[in-house]
Amino acid sequence: MNEAIRSAAQAVRATTPLVHNITNYVTVNDCANALIACGASPIMSDEAKDVVDITTICGALVLNIGTLNKRSIKSMFKAAARAGELNHPIILDPVGAGASRLRTKTASDLLDEAAVSVVRGNMSEIKALANGATTTRGVDVCPADAVVPENLVEAAAFAKNFAAEAGVVVAITGAIDIVATAKVAYAIYNGSPWQGKITGAGCMLSSMCGAYAAAMPSSPLDATLAAVCLMGLAGQVAEDRMGPQDGNGTFRTYLLDALCSIDPETLAQGARFEEIG
Amino acid sequence: MNEAIRSAAQAVRATTPLVHNITNYVTVNDCANALIACGASPIMSDEAKDVVDITTICGALVLNIGTLNKRSIKSMFKAAARAGELNHPIILDPVGAGASRLRTKTASDLLDEAAVSVVRGNMSEIKALANGATTTRGVDVCPADAVVPENLVEAAAFAKNFAAEAGVVVAITGAIDIVATAKVAYAIYNGSPWQGKITGAGCMLSSMCGAYAAAMPSSPLDATLAAVCLMGLAGQVAEDRMGPQDGNGTFRTYLLDALCSIDPETLAQGARFEEIG
Amino acid sequence: MNEAIRSAAQAVRATTPLVHNITNYVTVNDCANALIACGASPIMSDEAKDVVDITTICGALVLNIGTLNKRSIKSMFKAAARAGELNHPIILDPVGAGASRLRTKTASDLLDEAAVSVVRGNMSEIKALANGATTTRGVDVCPADAVVPENLVEAAAFAKNFAAEAGVVVAITGAIDIVATAKVAYAIYNGSPWQGKITGAGCMLSSMCGAYAAAMPSSPLDATLAAVCLMGLAGQVAEDRMGPQDGNGTFRTYLLDALCSIDPETLAQGARFEEIG
Repeated sequence: MNEAIRSAAQAVRATTPLVHNITNYVTVNDCANALIACGASPIMSDEAKDVVDITTICGALVLNIGTLNKRSIKSMFKAAARAGELNHPIILDPVGAGASRLRTKTASDLLDEAAVSVVRGNMSEIKALANGATTTRGVDVCPADAVVPENLVEAAAFAKNFAAEAGVVVAITGAIDIVATAKVAYAIYNGSPWQGKITGAGCMLSSMCGAYAAAMPSSPLDATLAAVCLMGLAGQVAEDRMGPQDGNGTFRTYLLDALCSIDPETLAQGARFEEIG
Repeated sequence: MNEAIRSAAQAVRATTPLVHNITNYVTVNDCANALIACGASPIMSDEAKDVVDITTICGALVLNIGTLNKRSIKSMFKAAARAGELNHPIILDPVGAGASRLRTKTASDLLDEAAVSVVRGNMSEIKALANGATTTRGVDVCPADAVVPENLVEAAAFAKNFAAEAGVVVAITGAIDIVATAKVAYAIYNGSPWQGKITGAGCMLSSMCGAYAAAMPSSPLDATLAAVCLMGLAGQVAEDRMGPQDGNGTFRTYLLDALCSIDPETLAQGARFEEIG
Repeated sequence: MNEAIRSAAQAVRATTPLVHNITNYVTVNDCANALIACGASPIMSDEAKDVVDITTICGALVLNIGTLNKRSIKSMFKAAARAGELNHPIILDPVGAGASRLRTKTASDLLDEAAVSVVRGNMSEIKALANGATTTRGVDVCPADAVVPENLVEAAAFAKNFAAEAGVVVAITGAIDIVATAKVAYAIYNGSPWQGKITGAGCMLSSMCGAYAAAMPSSPLDATLAAVCLMGLAGQVAEDRMGPQDGNGTFRTYLLDALCSIDPETLAQGARFEEIG
């Protein structure tokens, strides 16, 4: 898979895919800069009268429900229908699924009605989508849901099952990340604890999954695995640069810097993952 | 009060309170990162169909009218009603009160109809709420309203009177900050002039007041005083790190870093305040 | 013109103009910090019931269609009508004109119906406004539209023609920037390639054009030229500070820092431009 990761990163940098994001206003700036940093080009549009034209010229559509509202939900379905017609990969980030009925229902409906290729969330959000579990920690993972070495095999089996039922590639990110299809699951060991101490690490990754899927439309698994490894490796590079006075402000800056500087070869060499189960 | 400040900071870091923010899209990312930095967890939701569920799982509600619109105003009242039912502290940031009729009226109505615990604004905004004064400097304080040593006793008396009439803890921030209830007023001398040279220092503080009030629900005065001291001390720490080429970009980054690194003991030691009048 | 540039920068720092921005939620935080950095004061308001009051107390209005929606479009026209009554300069940033019909039409309608003083965009966007050309690169310039030494005379002639027909000062920014009226065109050689590797460099410049036009209401050409030179020089200063591990995260921070630190004299000395054609 290291060769596939290198190829995916090369494809993004070679093709500068346009990515249409309907996303939240909390982390949207970070998503845009992360897309540019990794070699893609962002467009944000959430007006129903605008999204069809914008999706048409893009290579992927990212739907992030972090600050969903009635207007943007309508636009998500409209954009998704157009992306489906064009066979563009659709990435769903179910931010806060489980924390409110509207979020759980919107994410579920998008999964049912749109041709979603990749779902990227934390374990609590994916569990909410899988079985309606509710979460008490808002947009953060519930501690009881964290993937750790002791429950990794079980988590990988859950991920494969979810991927099979939803017909998607799923990326469940946390201290250990899991990327799975119905048939195969990988655990990814790249990453930094600081990724959980900024807002937007997950959102940026979801947007980058859009860039990678756009560049590798026939290989969404490779694309997702590569994007997850890239974000994790960037977290490590950023953490390594931090000094004693640095906190989440500097980490956020260095994370974007690292996304700029990690080239395909470095990514392929630095990616740490293994097949599970 | 230094012991109370230490306790408040410890309580935030020990309980990681969830804070529901209905806030503006200008500084929302900074608010989210500031909440994480000081030990809390942010959620942003402004859709009427979403806010009741979100407020229910949170420990405090922050209402910031910086980019208010008809939809978000409706959501603010709906969320506030739910927070009131649950006895969750509500923090009001009347951004730009006095600069437009809609802002003044919305902030006044929220103060009247919602169970607001803490109001955090600059002196021009609080005067607009107190007596309908209009401001000519938009979201910045009017120079004539600045709190300086010469008018500090008068400003403290105004703050106590406002707190009494509104039934809140009020934080009036500027070069000298004032935190007051009906009975007592404190002047806080922490802070950096650079806080006025970034957007969002006030908004971040309002969100942090939410985190502190959530962690100390029975002591909103202690909570607010601690949050104001923390933001001011973080400004000082950030300013001390700045080099000759640095400006508001670097200050913003260092401010978040400082919010991460200041522990309860450092805050209690560094807080500089005194009772006035 | 160097004297005019110095005067414009001095006027901004001396008067701290208030700038009303109806802008996108992707780069709005950067716009606010850039305005403060260059000596102005930002206000963001996009609610129809709020914008008339806010425009009234400001010195310029910036209309940026980056994440336009039905509600904000209505507010743009309403604010523009009020700015027109007050003879406040209006700056139009036609983000993504050519990328969707709604964007092209909204920008064209604003140009026709509002008293726009300055239009700031990339060449693809300005071409879309001039002749309905459509773009395939979203919010980025199409490679075929880039201004290079070989087509500079032609581009300057196009800019003068556009300025004449629209009755505006036009700023077309890219590797080489052009600022033109019907009668004169300047090429500006300040800038850094990193400006194209962050989101928001164009949006920040458009907001700064608002600050400069507010401070020099009778000299929109000088104001626009000065703002374009300032952003370019800030890009150079920021790039010069970058180390081998730095990327677009650090560049964004340093760009704001440079906008803070470049004083009128430094700007006048560092501005590199010439009249074309």
